[in-house]
Amino acid sequence: IQSKLPNVGTTIFTTMSALAAQHNAVNLGQGLPDYAMSKELIALVSKAMNDNYNQYAPMAGWMPLRESIAEKVQFLYNTTINPDTDITITPGGTYAIYSSLTTILQPGDEVIVFEPAYDSYVPNIEVNGGKAILLPLTIPDFRIDWQLVKQNISPKTKAIIINTPHNPTGAVLQESDIQELRKIVKGTNIFIISDEVYEHLIFDGIAHQSILRYPDLMERSFVCFSFGKVYHCTGWKLGYTIAPAALTKEFRKVHQFNCFSCFTPAQVALATFLKDKDSYLQLSPFLQEKRDYFIELMKETRFNLKSSSGSYFITASYERISDEGDADFAIRLTKEFGVATIPLSAFYQNSKDDKLLRFCFAKKNETLEAAAEKLVNL
Amino acid sequence: IQSKLPNVGTTIFTTMSALAAQHNAVNLGQGLPDYAMSKELIALVSKAMNDNYNQYAPMAGWMPLRESIAEKVQFLYNTTINPDTDITITPGGTYAIYSSLTTILQPGDEVIVFEPAYDSYVPNIEVNGGKAILLPLTIPDFRIDWQLVKQNISPKTKAIIINTPHNPTGAVLQESDIQELRKIVKGTNIFIISDEVYEHLIFDGIAHQSILRYPDLMERSFVCFSFGKVYHCTGWKLGYTIAPAALTKEFRKVHQFNCFSCFTPAQVALATFLKDKDSYLQLSPFLQEKRDYFIELMKETRFNLKSSSGSYFITASYERISDEGDADFAIRLTKEFGVATIPLSAFYQNSKDDKLLRFCFAKKNETLEAAAEKLVNL
Ligand SMILES: CSCCC(=O)C(=O)O
Ligand SMILES: CSCCC(=O)C(=O)O
Repeated sequence: IQSKLPNVGTTIFTTMSALAAQHNAVNLGQGLPDYAMSKELIALVSKAMNDNYNQYAPMAGWMPLRESIAEKVQFLYNTTINPDTDITITPGGTYAIYSSLTTILQPGDEVIVFEPAYDSYVPNIEVNGGKAILLPLTIPDFRIDWQLVKQNISPKTKAIIINTPHNPTGAVLQESDIQELRKIVKGTNIFIISDEVYEHLIFDGIAHQSILRYPDLMERSFVCFSFGKVYHCTGWKLGYTIAPAALTKEFRKVHQFNCFSCFTPAQVALATFLKDKDSYLQLSPFLQEKRDYFIELMKETRFNLKSSSGSYFITASYERISDEGDADFAIRLTKEFGVATIPLSAFYQNSKDDKLLRFCFAKKNETLEAAAEKLVNL
Repeated sequence: IQSKLPNVGTTIFTTMSALAAQHNAVNLGQGLPDYAMSKELIALVSKAMNDNYNQYAPMAGWMPLRESIAEKVQFLYNTTINPDTDITITPGGTYAIYSSLTTILQPGDEVIVFEPAYDSYVPNIEVNGGKAILLPLTIPDFRIDWQLVKQNISPKTKAIIINTPHNPTGAVLQESDIQELRKIVKGTNIFIISDEVYEHLIFDGIAHQSILRYPDLMERSFVCFSFGKVYHCTGWKLGYTIAPAALTKEFRKVHQFNCFSCFTPAQVALATFLKDKDSYLQLSPFLQEKRDYFIELMKETRFNLKSSSGSYFITASYERISDEGDADFAIRLTKEFGVATIPLSAFYQNSKDDKLLRFCFAKKNETLEAAAEKLVNL
């Protein structure tokens, strides 16, 4: 078999989670909470199953859920979207991004990707015959260099992928970034894929710069969200894509023959659960406390924590501990010191080594404490 | 936006289900049971959620579920497959087929598809830059004309899609078909995509001709299954692909960046539930009774039911009632007579009209009776 993705190995998240399990390490690698999700939401799913909501949902998604999403978008961003024509429920955020790229890409198209980047973007582009134009975020703040973007726009540029809050660095886009993006795409046919799965994980009172706030950007955008990140149930694999009607129409052509529809009982449950604004508004303060506690704990170690304004990730340098490459160091940390992380080089196609590790702090306090206790030994 | 799938409209299943709802028609269109699924399986999912199995499952699927699948395959087909390297859990059968095609297709590749065909195959091929070679099944028995297949093999033939039991006709492959297939692919690099989602819906004591029975075919095959069809929960969107290790490795490269993983609680539940052989062995007798009851009821009408040896579909001609085209007739039947079906022309790319409608008989007896009562008026 001729490989469609010859350069692709097993995703780092799978690899590190397996290594963590094997060495019984505290797993601060893959982004998954280890505390319990809402019992109320679980009860709603059980009820939906017992009420016989077990057959295909409509291909675009359970309408009451789409309506609840539209209400939430109105409330948060003061933007009116049409649940009938603009929202499609997807089996997770990764799938939402994949199907958006599949919808727009023709062979030879270029897509601008900022690195470090979530590791699905580039294979998603390549599997659709496109070419990723890889631009580095600035060091040390992981911001977009818009001058560099301008220089890399070509007649082949089909799309730009943005991600705020940012995985793996926790950086967030500012309003000035959006203004630059506006200037660059104005008058072009460039699409925007906006990965906003960490929408509700943003700290220090910063406002999330959702593309949904900006009608002129929205008209060319696929904006991708995840319920798993919001409700501490990454294993439920449920998310959605918001795009204007003309783009959604094409998106659904791909979706209807890819997964077709999503787990019905959770859609029925979330349609109700999402109406409670606290269900998502409480997330940022909850995780900000986790972040701050982790920073506090890590002060006892020789790691240097960088800042994180969003997501449930924070990066740390280890120059006071070792000058190993980050992948080697991450493996040794798992095996010998019992703490699994993700080396930042995994988020670069060329494995560029910033000598940084990514820690996930969406964990019980005991877990964070257990990790810190091990890390003070380094 | 330049459409990736310019010829694709909304899938017929969505269209007819919406029309059925609008006209309050008895819906024998889309394949979805209207009776309750197992309460025990629901309870297992609820338990898994309450036991905190709500985070990402491994990308390839929950290992105990893969082990249960391997045991089932051993029991049913006397074939040993490796749960670690040969099975990947997918969000449904349609996705399993899509990701299989994405794994193997390069632009310009040809894929042989027999029509009438499940309507996702051709768009799946086209979205990956391939070309569908459409071959008609024989009329009236919907069998494969292997002579015609031979004539249509070319150096560009990348794969053949087979589907047994067959949607929409209920035809099943016989051992002689498998022998022909073997002869044709022997010594070539042609892959087989085998859509076996109706594996456990096969009647009259016929043995399911799974590709899993034939090691020489298996080595070049992606065999796609669905839990939704087996356990009356089409809305759960859970299935799996079995393929030899080398193919599974490439399949997972696509899967890990498409959906990445599947709804964890149902995987945990099914790992246990699947061990009970009755849970799937009882399906064929249960649905055979439905089929026979529906045939009986329909004797009172002027429809001519064709035979169905598998799936939960049966086709019927209506030449004694009308000479309308099947799409027009299906729409009128929904609107004026209150029974929704699927016109067979929807399963042909050129909308070929065999003057047949597809009925789904996976319905409560009352539903089948209600439909027949309306249909006697024609
Ligand atoms: C498939 S892992 C999804 C993203 C995430 O959780 C991570 O970056 O760790
Ligand atoms: C997405 S519909 C899946 C197949 C089926 O149920 C049908 O053919 O009706």
